[in-house]
Amino acid sequence: MIDVVIAGIGQTKVGELWDIGLRDLAFDAIQDAVKDSGGLKPQALFVGNMLAPNLSNQAHLGALIADCAGLAGIEAMTLEAAGASGGAALRQGYLAVASGMVDVALVIGVEKFTDKVGPDVDAALATTSDSDFEAVQGMTPTSQAALLMRRYMHEYQVPADGFAGFALTAHANGANNPCAMFQKAIKLETYMKAEMVSEPLNIFDIAPNADGAAAVVLTRRELLLTSFAHPHVKISGSASISDTLALHDRKDMLYFDTAQLSAGKAMKQVGITLDQINFFEYHDMFSIYAALQLEAIGFAIKGKGWKLAADGAIGLKGKIPCATMGGLKARGFPGGASGVYQAVEAVTQLRGQAGTNQIAGAKYGLIQSLGGPASTAISHVLERL
Amino acid sequence: MIDVVIAGIGQTKVGELWDIGLRDLAFDAIQDAVKDSGGLKPQALFVGNMLAPNLSNQAHLGALIADCAGLAGIEAMTLEAAGASGGAALRQGYLAVASGMVDVALVIGVEKFTDKVGPDVDAALATTSDSDFEAVQGMTPTSQAALLMRRYMHEYQVPADGFAGFALTAHANGANNPCAMFQKAIKLETYMKAEMVSEPLNIFDIAPNADGAAAVVLTRRELLLTSFAHPHVKISGSASISDTLALHDRKDMLYFDTAQLSAGKAMKQVGITLDQINFFEYHDMFSIYAALQLEAIGFAIKGKGWKLAADGAIGLKGKIPCATMGGLKARGFPGGASGVYQAVEAVTQLRGQAGTNQIAGAKYGLIQSLGGPASTAISHVLERL
Repeated sequence: MIDVVIAGIGQTKVGELWDIGLRDLAFDAIQDAVKDSGGLKPQALFVGNMLAPNLSNQAHLGALIADCAGLAGIEAMTLEAAGASGGAALRQGYLAVASGMVDVALVIGVEKFTDKVGPDVDAALATTSDSDFEAVQGMTPTSQAALLMRRYMHEYQVPADGFAGFALTAHANGANNPCAMFQKAIKLETYMKAEMVSEPLNIFDIAPNADGAAAVVLTRRELLLTSFAHPHVKISGSASISDTLALHDRKDMLYFDTAQLSAGKAMKQVGITLDQINFFEYHDMFSIYAALQLEAIGFAIKGKGWKLAADGAIGLKGKIPCATMGGLKARGFPGGASGVYQAVEAVTQLRGQAGTNQIAGAKYGLIQSLGGPASTAISHVLERL
Repeated sequence: MIDVVIAGIGQTKVGELWDIGLRDLAFDAIQDAVKDSGGLKPQALFVGNMLAPNLSNQAHLGALIADCAGLAGIEAMTLEAAGASGGAALRQGYLAVASGMVDVALVIGVEKFTDKVGPDVDAALATTSDSDFEAVQGMTPTSQAALLMRRYMHEYQVPADGFAGFALTAHANGANNPCAMFQKAIKLETYMKAEMVSEPLNIFDIAPNADGAAAVVLTRRELLLTSFAHPHVKISGSASISDTLALHDRKDMLYFDTAQLSAGKAMKQVGITLDQINFFEYHDMFSIYAALQLEAIGFAIKGKGWKLAADGAIGLKGKIPCATMGGLKARGFPGGASGVYQAVEAVTQLRGQAGTNQIAGAKYGLIQSLGGPASTAISHVLERL
């Protein structure tokens, strides 16, 4: 059995980065990740990207970024699975090393939202939902999440401030992440007074679209350079599951099957149970997604996921710390880079480099990248060896 | 060593299919491929698609098509590498089985060009070239190919009818392929009188954008059902190589390095030499691409690739039969499906089911899928066992 380890991590600051383009963002993250690995030489590149063909008028990112990073000649391709594109690239990179196909794989997630503005961004995002049955009705991922949240609140009698804990936790943690888009804690009253985007979803229930790039270098453990000084972090579990794009095709809209199945499969590969997971990086594109992931995976029973946020259980010192570096909400949502940011942040925790936000003694981190309302869910368990 | 075989093939007719949408095209090809395999159950789906986020306003095809094919719940993601997207999906499907990750993988290539028309299609295609340095200047893949062809003709003193053989061969072969977009042979005078698109490139030097879907079911040889009655076809070699997107960054624009390297690597895996290849499915998006692939791979010396077409060496009874079912030129260019069509057609030859176009005793077929002017080249050697 091959031990696939994350030998290098790199990330750019997340935000509205008007001064830097897609390829240069990718280059910066790659350079940092390769340097962090001690200078390993990647033989294959897997790019996680969600919307560049629409937002940046640029497809064919595999060859483009390989060349830009000085790696022209290696194998390179783009993975797309909507918001889970970063998770998909991570998974293919993992499989490339695990299968023995390559010794060193490079995974880069990159997105440049600010290449377009306003309705063009909405139109691009709408391509990730079912165009024939959802987008054509004018439904955007945000309005869909609002419907989901309203149904949830109705079904489980959730009060108006029920979801506030997700935003409060994310922003408190983002305050200590120098790469986060928002580095400022917020108060409950800020959440309560926030502008409604699509009732009952307010602006703090939504992760901000942002620019950013994150990269990881993967290799077999025995190929780590002798100069490599970090604790070793292994990808111990990896799984990807799909579901319908259209919500109306689900048996139960308020249960994210794929979140359960992919996390369960990944944990089974490691041979651990839920109580051994030290922290969880969920895909909090919308606060309702976070609640539903917590329930599907089993951290809370159905209808009680929001309580983990309200009770502080997802805080850094809580039962199951989540969004430890700010999550999508405060670190920002750089589309197809998000799943790779999760990996970078989890490695930071497992190496003990998370500073103020460090989860003491963290050994297992679960990260989960979603495409749409868990139409795709890709889960990885990262382990400090 | 695991023997990965192509257990099932399926394809739709290629053309302007105004009456059928993207997901239904995919469904038709998948249904045929699964049926042809005797009913194997895929555990992972790899979608090759080039432009659906632009042309069809639909991303996230993995989950969408898995659901549409009755496979919701399996792993599913999209591979993109411009025109080589189909080859990329085939390669990931191959690796999924070769690595033991899954027993059965499904690869589908699908594209729906007619969801958009005119300038919208040109804009979508331009995303596959370097947007910052090529597309922004107004360069399209077609105008770029014209420049490449003009340089080639100048450099090697090629006469005006020098490339005619590529179109004549493709259309002669397409005439016997019931799935081809154009099923009619053409004459030299038709080529010579053809409308110029971008001098010296006339309309017969360009493969037509088209709708279509092709699928293959991959499995380990020992998992073939006992009822499986076809000759066994194995994927014996697989390789993918990248190069710069922008042509001006190449040392020699008239040499497709990636075509050479990926084909060479794939053949080395099989342990065969060029003279053992019985037919070659090139990526004749433009006739100049076909000439440059023949030279890079070594079927002709530099500057003489066009002569293989002029002399009939690429014909069904020639030294190296190419585009045996019509190629991109006559079968049509359904974007990210093209690489999968190549696989389906090669299996048809290797099984001995190619009818009038059968290459007698074919044992090894080389297929090569290109993204842009060989910015990505993905090669597979298929072998009849």
